[in-house]
Amino acid sequence: MIEKLKKEVLQANLDLVKYGLVTLTWGNVSGIDRSEGLVVIKPSGVSYDKLTENDMVVVNLNGNVVDGKKKPSSDTPTHIELYKAFSEIGGITHTHSKYATIFAQACKEIPCFGTTHADHFSGKIPLTRFLTKKEVEDGYEKNTGKIIIERFKKLNLLLIPAVLVAGHGPFTFGKDAAESIKNSLVLERVAEMAIGTVQLNKNVKELLKYISNKHYRRKHGPDSYYGQNDSGDKE
Amino acid sequence: MIEKLKKEVLQANLDLVKYGLVTLTWGNVSGIDRSEGLVVIKPSGVSYDKLTENDMVVVNLNGNVVDGKKKPSSDTPTHIELYKAFSEIGGITHTHSKYATIFAQACKEIPCFGTTHADHFSGKIPLTRFLTKKEVEDGYEKNTGKIIIERFKKLNLLLIPAVLVAGHGPFTFGKDAAESIKNSLVLERVAEMAIGTVQLNKNVKELLKYISNKHYRRKHGPDSYYGQNDSGDKE
Amino acid sequence: MIEKLKKEVLQANLDLVKYGLVTLTWGNVSGIDRSEGLVVIKPSGVSYDKLTENDMVVVNLNGNVVDGKKKPSSDTPTHIELYKAFSEIGGITHTHSKYATIFAQACKEIPCFGTTHADHFSGKIPLTRFLTKKEVEDGYEKNTGKIIIERFKKLNLLLIPAVLVAGHGPFTFGKDAAESIKNSLVLERVAEMAIGTVQLNKNVKELLKYISNKHYRRKHGPDSYYGQNDSGDKE
Amino acid sequence: MIEKLKKEVLQANLDLVKYGLVTLTWGNVSGIDRSEGLVVIKPSGVSYDKLTENDMVVVNLNGNVVDGKKKPSSDTPTHIELYKAFSEIGGITHTHSKYATIFAQACKEIPCFGTTHADHFSGKIPLTRFLTKKEVEDGYEKNTGKIIIERFKKLNLLLIPAVLVAGHGPFTFGKDAAESIKNSLVLERVAEMAIGTVQLNKNVKELLKYISNKHYRRKHGPDSYYGQNDSGDKE
Repeated sequence: MIEKLKKEVLQANLDLVKYGLVTLTWGNVSGIDRSEGLVVIKPSGVSYDKLTENDMVVVNLNGNVVDGKKKPSSDTPTHIELYKAFSEIGGITHTHSKYATIFAQACKEIPCFGTTHADHFSGKIPLTRFLTKKEVEDGYEKNTGKIIIERFKKLNLLLIPAVLVAGHGPFTFGKDAAESIKNSLVLERVAEMAIGTVQLNKNVKELLKYISNKHYRRKHGPDSYYGQNDSGDKE
Repeated sequence: MIEKLKKEVLQANLDLVKYGLVTLTWGNVSGIDRSEGLVVIKPSGVSYDKLTENDMVVVNLNGNVVDGKKKPSSDTPTHIELYKAFSEIGGITHTHSKYATIFAQACKEIPCFGTTHADHFSGKIPLTRFLTKKEVEDGYEKNTGKIIIERFKKLNLLLIPAVLVAGHGPFTFGKDAAESIKNSLVLERVAEMAIGTVQLNKNVKELLKYISNKHYRRKHGPDSYYGQNDSGDKE
Repeated sequence: MIEKLKKEVLQANLDLVKYGLVTLTWGNVSGIDRSEGLVVIKPSGVSYDKLTENDMVVVNLNGNVVDGKKKPSSDTPTHIELYKAFSEIGGITHTHSKYATIFAQACKEIPCFGTTHADHFSGKIPLTRFLTKKEVEDGYEKNTGKIIIERFKKLNLLLIPAVLVAGHGPFTFGKDAAESIKNSLVLERVAEMAIGTVQLNKNVKELLKYISNKHYRRKHGPDSYYGQNDSGDKE
Repeated sequence: MIEKLKKEVLQANLDLVKYGLVTLTWGNVSGIDRSEGLVVIKPSGVSYDKLTENDMVVVNLNGNVVDGKKKPSSDTPTHIELYKAFSEIGGITHTHSKYATIFAQACKEIPCFGTTHADHFSGKIPLTRFLTKKEVEDGYEKNTGKIIIERFKKLNLLLIPAVLVAGHGPFTFGKDAAESIKNSLVLERVAEMAIGTVQLNKNVKELLKYISNKHYRRKHGPDSYYGQNDSGDKE
């Protein structure tokens, strides 16, 4: 089971390259085996073109390595914190992808300007606050997880499986590693088009609620009718 | 005949990827056999790299599947509505391509700023109104077709085979599936250059009518002289 | 000799695709054999991926086809006019490349903001006026050549082998077809960076004359010292 | 030893193409063998796709060619000046990469807007002054080195291994040729995202010092914990 998860997490990490979401080693994907309480994650600072299944690192929810010879991603404590808080997710992707990071650096949430956004995210992409000096000095990566959790207190992560960490970049979520990276790709496209939309029309308004709700429900939930029933593939 | 159409529609859908007009499965192309009254369209939510001729779905003008094992694109009712209203078209392409979608999201029509635009479209690219709440709730996809038809009431779709649905994205038309996707590509380039043009010169004016008309007529209609006579290829 | 020129012109046309300077068939390159007074040019509207040496069309300076089965580019009269006016050039490239076309559509000349520009062009990239209604109606393509020639009356085309036709796009020149398309590529990069420069700093000034002159002379003229002496390759 | 350095410098020059940092021949990488006092650098104006190990030119710190049949890069005197001033560096990369050059042309330093920047550069990317007329006329390339050195008088080049020459473009540094070009790639991404950040939020502030310091120290210095210990690979 953990071997299958390693394969999936490796593939998702390689897809970061395929989708143009990373430069050098700036990104990481993880997946969790809930029954075992084990997380598989990319090793820290290893080049994507050298990455093999054996490089994947297995950690438990205390952050201890239980399998693998390499050090796990330095962002591992963030992933663990998120898995502990959100029992409904099975995969997490973190990137510094260009346009989502531009929003994070500009400290702006991403408004829903069109049906492309509404098809995938039910509402604005939220932005965290900045960490305090104390939070940075004492458990930086773990606290990055905590401010994300804080941001979702009044939001439903399943409806909006993406978040921007202020001054840093995006994290996205999914039922597994593959879905989390797909959300990462969608987020990037949505962010790019949102920048262009604002440039073209400074007074643009968010998409009318009844249209964005309709689009979201076409692809998600009990009344969804997009995609093939047999495959469950909603993209 | 329908088999030939399936091949053409498959190829056109694959060209969406080749031309960089889609992310994931966000787009669909269809073609119609007017003599049989049958439309061939991409199945809903199937990945482009897995798409085969057999996946193509055949529907009649009532929207019933008459051939194919998969569900047709969720946008099928929009296509059907358009085929019924515009007897002169044989193919329709819908994408969420970046720059055309930015215009749709910004709720701006695309003015004709240069001969690249004028070579292909005789005038501004029109923008529909938003659907009302009632139109969204009751027959959303069909009504998307209807507001496009409404927008073309005083326009000649053959002269401007492209339209932006407000807050959504572009639809383009052609005498067949291949021509509709070619118009989709042209629209995307024209949209991208229009954004840059406005950024560089806020007071830019539309191209002088006698120049845009000249360019359009070089490529279209009885006096056209672009391309090879034998091939009919005007690109 | 004309066969060699055909090969060169074919290669230059294919390089348009390699360098990302064209969409569909929107561009053409020609070369001239001065001793014979013959111009080789791309056929009109033929797809680049099907183009062969045999498709190249040979015309004389009266615009009559003397070799080749296809119709020459519809822009042929423009090329001929330019070859007749500028005896020092051996190749011409016309594209609708993105950023140069944006400047042409915005009716702005491209100022020299940096050494990349100064390395290749000694001064601003000039912009023509618009054609009059009469000039469009009676000999449009030939008159496009004439307004370019008019624009260079007080400029040295050898020092600035590029021009923007208002509302249309760029033409570039060279001692042969290959050099003209290289200038087309440089123009595109220079145009793209100029747009970004103005966006970043609205009050940016043109590069100091003594720096731009120095850079131009490093690569051109009797005191140039860039590149290898033996190859004559200055790029 | 010098043969090994030639291989490294060739590879670094080829990586310029792989990373999309050059057009034509607009860039050069060098490396130094400190024990021998010899610099290996790209030949001037030779196309990257023809470049071989044998084309690499070896010069001493007086700028004299001691090995190689080709002329060294015209920027060689700049490189030499920098190697003499900064004993801690082993490689230098110069490019005209798009976004870093836009900042250089706009005469703006690149502020640290996010952790991507902070992970690699400890502070703003500095900008030189313009050369005076005299400095241009008498030893232009050498003086380009001198104004870079001048700019770093109160800065630590090891903490910020990148600089923009006003109106020209970027130079980056590293412990060897490979690291200098990696910094070139990072600089380009950081520059691109900085432009987007400012466009999206005109009032954006630089990243809080305690966050940028934390990120820099995660990857550099005695307390760094990013990457694998055994490989020393910090990317």
